[in-house]
Amino acid sequence: MSICGLLVNGTTGEGLSLNVQERKQLAEEWLCQGKDKLDHVIIHVGALSLAESQELARHAAAVGATGIAVLAPFFFKPTNKDELIAFLQKVASEAPAVPFYYYHIPPLTAVKIRVEELLDGITEQIPTFRGVKFSDTDLLDLAQCINKNEREQFTFLYGVDEQLLSALAIGADGAVGSTYNYLGQKNNLMLQAFAKPDLALARKYQFLTGEFLNFVTKLGFGVAQTKAVMTFVSGIPMGPPRLPLVDASEEFIIKAKAKLESIVWPDSD
Amino acid sequence: MSICGLLVNGTTGEGLSLNVQERKQLAEEWLCQGKDKLDHVIIHVGALSLAESQELARHAAAVGATGIAVLAPFFFKPTNKDELIAFLQKVASEAPAVPFYYYHIPPLTAVKIRVEELLDGITEQIPTFRGVKFSDTDLLDLAQCINKNEREQFTFLYGVDEQLLSALAIGADGAVGSTYNYLGQKNNLMLQAFAKPDLALARKYQFLTGEFLNFVTKLGFGVAQTKAVMTFVSGIPMGPPRLPLVDASEEFIIKAKAKLESIVWPDSD
Amino acid sequence: MSICGLLVNGTTGEGLSLNVQERKQLAEEWLCQGKDKLDHVIIHVGALSLAESQELARHAAAVGATGIAVLAPFFFKPTNKDELIAFLQKVASEAPAVPFYYYHIPPLTAVKIRVEELLDGITEQIPTFRGVKFSDTDLLDLAQCINKNEREQFTFLYGVDEQLLSALAIGADGAVGSTYNYLGQKNNLMLQAFAKPDLALARKYQFLTGEFLNFVTKLGFGVAQTKAVMTFVSGIPMGPPRLPLVDASEEFIIKAKAKLESIVWPDSD
Amino acid sequence: MSICGLLVNGTTGEGLSLNVQERKQLAEEWLCQGKDKLDHVIIHVGALSLAESQELARHAAAVGATGIAVLAPFFFKPTNKDELIAFLQKVASEAPAVPFYYYHIPPLTAVKIRVEELLDGITEQIPTFRGVKFSDTDLLDLAQCINKNEREQFTFLYGVDEQLLSALAIGADGAVGSTYNYLGQKNNLMLQAFAKPDLALARKYQFLTGEFLNFVTKLGFGVAQTKAVMTFVSGIPMGPPRLPLVDASEEFIIKAKAKLESIVWPDSD
Repeated sequence: MSICGLLVNGTTGEGLSLNVQERKQLAEEWLCQGKDKLDHVIIHVGALSLAESQELARHAAAVGATGIAVLAPFFFKPTNKDELIAFLQKVASEAPAVPFYYYHIPPLTAVKIRVEELLDGITEQIPTFRGVKFSDTDLLDLAQCINKNEREQFTFLYGVDEQLLSALAIGADGAVGSTYNYLGQKNNLMLQAFAKPDLALARKYQFLTGEFLNFVTKLGFGVAQTKAVMTFVSGIPMGPPRLPLVDASEEFIIKAKAKLESIVWPDSD
Repeated sequence: MSICGLLVNGTTGEGLSLNVQERKQLAEEWLCQGKDKLDHVIIHVGALSLAESQELARHAAAVGATGIAVLAPFFFKPTNKDELIAFLQKVASEAPAVPFYYYHIPPLTAVKIRVEELLDGITEQIPTFRGVKFSDTDLLDLAQCINKNEREQFTFLYGVDEQLLSALAIGADGAVGSTYNYLGQKNNLMLQAFAKPDLALARKYQFLTGEFLNFVTKLGFGVAQTKAVMTFVSGIPMGPPRLPLVDASEEFIIKAKAKLESIVWPDSD
Repeated sequence: MSICGLLVNGTTGEGLSLNVQERKQLAEEWLCQGKDKLDHVIIHVGALSLAESQELARHAAAVGATGIAVLAPFFFKPTNKDELIAFLQKVASEAPAVPFYYYHIPPLTAVKIRVEELLDGITEQIPTFRGVKFSDTDLLDLAQCINKNEREQFTFLYGVDEQLLSALAIGADGAVGSTYNYLGQKNNLMLQAFAKPDLALARKYQFLTGEFLNFVTKLGFGVAQTKAVMTFVSGIPMGPPRLPLVDASEEFIIKAKAKLESIVWPDSD
Repeated sequence: MSICGLLVNGTTGEGLSLNVQERKQLAEEWLCQGKDKLDHVIIHVGALSLAESQELARHAAAVGATGIAVLAPFFFKPTNKDELIAFLQKVASEAPAVPFYYYHIPPLTAVKIRVEELLDGITEQIPTFRGVKFSDTDLLDLAQCINKNEREQFTFLYGVDEQLLSALAIGADGAVGSTYNYLGQKNNLMLQAFAKPDLALARKYQFLTGEFLNFVTKLGFGVAQTKAVMTFVSGIPMGPPRLPLVDASEEFIIKAKAKLESIVWPDSD
């Protein structure tokens, strides 16, 4: 298991801060660049407007996305499973040959419908359903999802990076998260250690990733700050975030860089 | 004081569930129909994407809106006054001749930046700023807004319909809300009673409006249900809501209608 | 209408930070001192433990309280009206000749059972029931309470001091709150203005009280800070708060004092 | 590692619903009965009143508790680490020879001070400090606690039973929870599987425990219902809960029993 795919126009990519035209452009560009190098290029097509979401789904299908993902609408919120499924179904059916993923992120959407319930019978409504990006700390829900759907081979990708090891322990298939844009190699080493299993080693990687995230969280850590870290780690300028996000401060960058460089990883011996 | 204006593409109008093209169409239609009959046709141009919001602001200006309104972006949320002002300013400046209103609705956006702070020096950044649609129960904040800005003649329109009288008591200028689409006349009688002042009479109207809202809230009351009520009161079919909202149930409609008809208003003697 | 009573062992009195013996002592002392000077000496006897609450109720009755008040238990929380009524009933019945008040304070208890529902048929269960201290911003609930129970002559005392005028507008009978320990006279002038009615004058008082509360809230304002203000206004040392509360800082006291002294009240001409 | 101790007067024991005398009686009884059979009999002495908490701590020490535990006061809430430490220190110092545990349960107290920060330097203030009952889903916080304090040999007992395996994965020492009162043996088998490590087997136990908890949660599951389950599993009548809790319904008991009996555990082959 290793991380070799991409979620385009998701949270880190500020997909919801772009207009439809910009989202299409980005999808095209990533599919063009990534197709040969990545196993998965999943396009996030969620939007507050069903009409927009459908338009983006059709476009993603047309330009060859290997999957589409949708989060729950969150101005008007679905209040039960049926309302959420109805919305997702209307999007998925616009791309009937493209694998569909539900992007569960209640800390941002405040939509707390349990995924375990959502999945009950979902392929009858959405035949293209393939899995979930699960960005929540309710691991009972995640464990039930994994357990009940084993034979159907859905994929469960975990999105709370600071506790990925805990999700792996109950059977998560992998991860999608912003941390892997700059600590991807360390994370792969954690995945390898877990697979052996060498839990003591896996735990060290998780602790150290957590140590960094814990540190920057206290400084104020969001997508703008993540981009600043990605920039100084990769050398590739990520550009400024879009309002309402504002650039990370110089002070943040200096402190975050010093912290990241101070970490002594197990494999650095 | 009486209610003689319209907020187009706001919450009741499901503005955020429409795509950009649909929002433009509706703005044009309402301006065309309403211009001669209404003092104000304010177009809500808020969106998660600044680019979209700016496009809608330019369009609203071009087609003759008497004002534009913007709510705080709420996927990525501004964390302080400066970030929110920066976003609003970028929208307002695209319509430099159109009065600008901030639409404060923390129950839906979870953006709780106090309006009183936001208003401090706002005209330096947004010269077109004219007022607030205040949809929150923090009446200390509202009272401070009114008090501190009296001489600048901003307008404060209250948006929690079930407690409008309490906002009037501390000086609110008027109201914008979905209830007035079907109980507008009763509400005008309350405003008249308050203006006299005949508080005992005003209170009766507020109690009875509250009685209805209290009743339907227990049945489950949102924008879809509001539209059903508007339909049976006006006789004008409002059409189905858009997903994730779903049609009000027949049972709701029967109960809500019976309740509304059972209310004995003071002026019905 | 004027404020001429006392709630002993409530929030400001840190009743829940005292042990049973201390609460009894304070009840006795206030009843002894206040009996001739105050119309009402209501003893708060709420506790997490029903057994403790009942013991305090019996004691309050024995020493001559003019009323007892109880808040909802909030470690284990009642989940519906019946569970809350059952708890309150068991306390009230220990003091069968003493008027009983429910102390509704969801911001501290997180028990959000609507008072309007609670009151429906309450005297069948609690014949001594006389009213509510309503410390919440849900004015729809308060208005329904007042409206539905007018003929039964319950008393509704409002407890969110910064928006008392808004509660008076919908018919609240009076107020219980910490602000009145140091701004009681100003508040009485607001009540007089409202009674005339001179709403413009009442509004000025409310604005100015709000101005002070708004200012200190930004500095960090709780019961410890309230006591510091009471001390410098009255000259009577209130003593330190009990842990987990800690003394107000010197800086707070200096700033709060300066602010309070800077306010120009309408009656100071 | 196996579970062989008891937390007396904690959540399941409804400690906070008892008065001081009852809490003392229970502590004495459990210490008398359990001393020879259990490695640990830890008495929970937390209370809203510091004075009460101190009295209970002295009593626990006098009657031979092997440890005391305290939760954060939660009517008035400590707002930072220093205020919480100050409160805990005043309790711990009344039992200077008794190991001290902090009971972290933000879902009930709403006190969210991160434990990782709390522990920084804690033994200077509380020399008897020995560990934490950690009842929260923030596993980043828990992982940091474990990592930073390894050399000091604190104990971290996890209290969210439905995701214990995830806490074990990052190094938790064990568990304290109500589930172990009726699924203790199954849980010990999970601990054994994890220790091997046989993660696939451990996961099966966790899934099945979760399956039960997931099922009863949907029926409404609290301490009253837990007691009903304990009663039908053990045959020992646990008696009714105390108000505001009310007895589990007959319907709940029938459904919960059927569910528990329907589970096929790995070791039942």
